[in-house]
Amino acid sequence: MHKLVRLGVLAGALVGASAAHAQFAKPEDAIKFRQAKMLLQANFVGRIGAVVKGVRPYDKDQVLSYAQTLDTLSQAGWDGFPPGSDQGGQTRALPAIWQDAAKFQAAQKKLEDATANLVKAAQSGDLGNVKQAFGPVAQACKGCHDDFRKD
Amino acid sequence: MHKLVRLGVLAGALVGASAAHAQFAKPEDAIKFRQAKMLLQANFVGRIGAVVKGVRPYDKDQVLSYAQTLDTLSQAGWDGFPPGSDQGGQTRALPAIWQDAAKFQAAQKKLEDATANLVKAAQSGDLGNVKQAFGPVAQACKGCHDDFRKD
Repeated sequence: MHKLVRLGVLAGALVGASAAHAQFAKPEDAIKFRQAKMLLQANFVGRIGAVVKGVRPYDKDQVLSYAQTLDTLSQAGWDGFPPGSDQGGQTRALPAIWQDAAKFQAAQKKLEDATANLVKAAQSGDLGNVKQAFGPVAQACKGCHDDFRKD
Repeated sequence: MHKLVRLGVLAGALVGASAAHAQFAKPEDAIKFRQAKMLLQANFVGRIGAVVKGVRPYDKDQVLSYAQTLDTLSQAGWDGFPPGSDQGGQTRALPAIWQDAAKFQAAQKKLEDATANLVKAAQSGDLGNVKQAFGPVAQACKGCHDDFRKD
């Protein structure tokens, strides 16, 4: 790691230590929080995915409800990655989250935009629209995991 | 356990086995899902609670956002308690959840109503209203845990 990057990470960790304390008593709490968020997101993506794949029947009210829950989750809780929480518990979060915060934020926004669009598609009550809007959601999940999560 | 209760639980477990499969491949998945839901709920209750207790400053937009997220979480995912998921993983869920489903549903509704009211209070932008609406939320959490969760 370059010296400047290392200094930046250190500074971020120091600033972040108090930021983390703002919402989480210790790094492990942040890790558990974000893992819970991710688990729920994955679950609701899976629920909608099953409909998109034709494994489960299309119920427009149910899919709308799932999409709204997913959207709320995707917009919330990104503060679950405070600097310093790259350790302190079992985590697959990669250092890139804190080393390239702008890229990580862009990845968050990609998911947020995709789930907001999915809600609009679900509101239309048209399964075709839901299918079309679902792809970018799945891609946003995968893209972020590829870049920021250990395999 | 009385014979009839035992039969009822068994029948519920059999019906529930397919219902559980509807959203969760195995009971452990349901257990992890509902624990993630509870962890996030507790976290957002804690965020708002810190403001109510004066530990953190009142930011009305932030509290509204927290309340909305909490409300979405409280309305969603009660299917994370399918019959048969009283075991299959580490869980503190008490048998009363499945033996007295009506009471458990009433407890769910108490939380849902309380968080919906909290959103309204947060929308008013008045901390006094938020404080007043927060009590029933905390009580709904505690009441449900008292009756349906192992200590």
